[in-house]
Amino acid sequence: MNFDLELSTQALARTPGTLHALLDGLPAPWTRGVEGPDTFSPFDVVGHLIDGEETDWIPRARIILAQGPNPLFEPYDRFRHRARNVGRTLPSLLEEFAQLRGANLVLLRSLNLTPAALELPGIHPSLGRVTLRQLLSAWVVHDFGHIAQVARVMAKQLRHEVGPWEPFLPVLTDHETPRS
Amino acid sequence: MNFDLELSTQALARTPGTLHALLDGLPAPWTRGVEGPDTFSPFDVVGHLIDGEETDWIPRARIILAQGPNPLFEPYDRFRHRARNVGRTLPSLLEEFAQLRGANLVLLRSLNLTPAALELPGIHPSLGRVTLRQLLSAWVVHDFGHIAQVARVMAKQLRHEVGPWEPFLPVLTDHETPRS
Repeated sequence: MNFDLELSTQALARTPGTLHALLDGLPAPWTRGVEGPDTFSPFDVVGHLIDGEETDWIPRARIILAQGPNPLFEPYDRFRHRARNVGRTLPSLLEEFAQLRGANLVLLRSLNLTPAALELPGIHPSLGRVTLRQLLSAWVVHDFGHIAQVARVMAKQLRHEVGPWEPFLPVLTDHETPRS
Repeated sequence: MNFDLELSTQALARTPGTLHALLDGLPAPWTRGVEGPDTFSPFDVVGHLIDGEETDWIPRARIILAQGPNPLFEPYDRFRHRARNVGRTLPSLLEEFAQLRGANLVLLRSLNLTPAALELPGIHPSLGRVTLRQLLSAWVVHDFGHIAQVARVMAKQLRHEVGPWEPFLPVLTDHETPRS
């Protein structure tokens, strides 16, 4: 698949509902479990996705589209959510994520991005030059990666209960060394 | 987490809605893409989960609970769905999966499984002796594994569009050699 703004927007629109269907109302053994030290629980993932809405994808797209002399992105804090969401509930975070994502997609559509706009550059603080097309593609892939992570982390909570099935359920042994 | 019938049932109940939220109504570039030869598209995964409802998890639980002299499971055909679902649409498969799963969870709850029942054995055709507890745990983990697979396969459709982000989005390079 080549990048397609409509297909990408359709995918981005699915993520809040997907996470709501998977997580809303489940008890803590499912939503607060992790797969290792310094890794994200499903609760953490939703907080991390909120951070992306507020500080990453659309703010960086705006920097690109402003076409200033130095379109340098702000560094992104992968752990902003840890302090931000102390005391929050998962249902409230899921609702907040849905609202933020919905507003960001309304904004994205309102930009009426042309093929030429998708090739405009920004400067990532560690990756260097990237285009708006690459940024929007990364936003979509980032969503899917975190949906996969939530499912994997939940699967691993039962790793020691499946007996001889363990080697035949590869999700249990993916990311033995945390990669995301 | 130790196996808990109520927690596991809650998780199993989420899968149809999760896949519906993620996939229902999306066009073929998202739902029919694969990550390599002889791997499952999202469409294939839903068909494979239907096969599990019809021929794997509950039928095997019934064999265990019958406590016959030889509780040997039927072999499971991972590719039954390929011939079964020619000409089907994804929305119709999602609806069928939801109906089958719902009925199987009603049945599961009606069994009022005791701790002793969870330790009853069956014989897997290749894995040997397994318990009902392990079978039910594997059912839950299998769901999560395929949700993760669907998200990973969708992510990989944009693998060549993310530019320098590729090494920082590990979902793009998970399962380079297919593992499930």
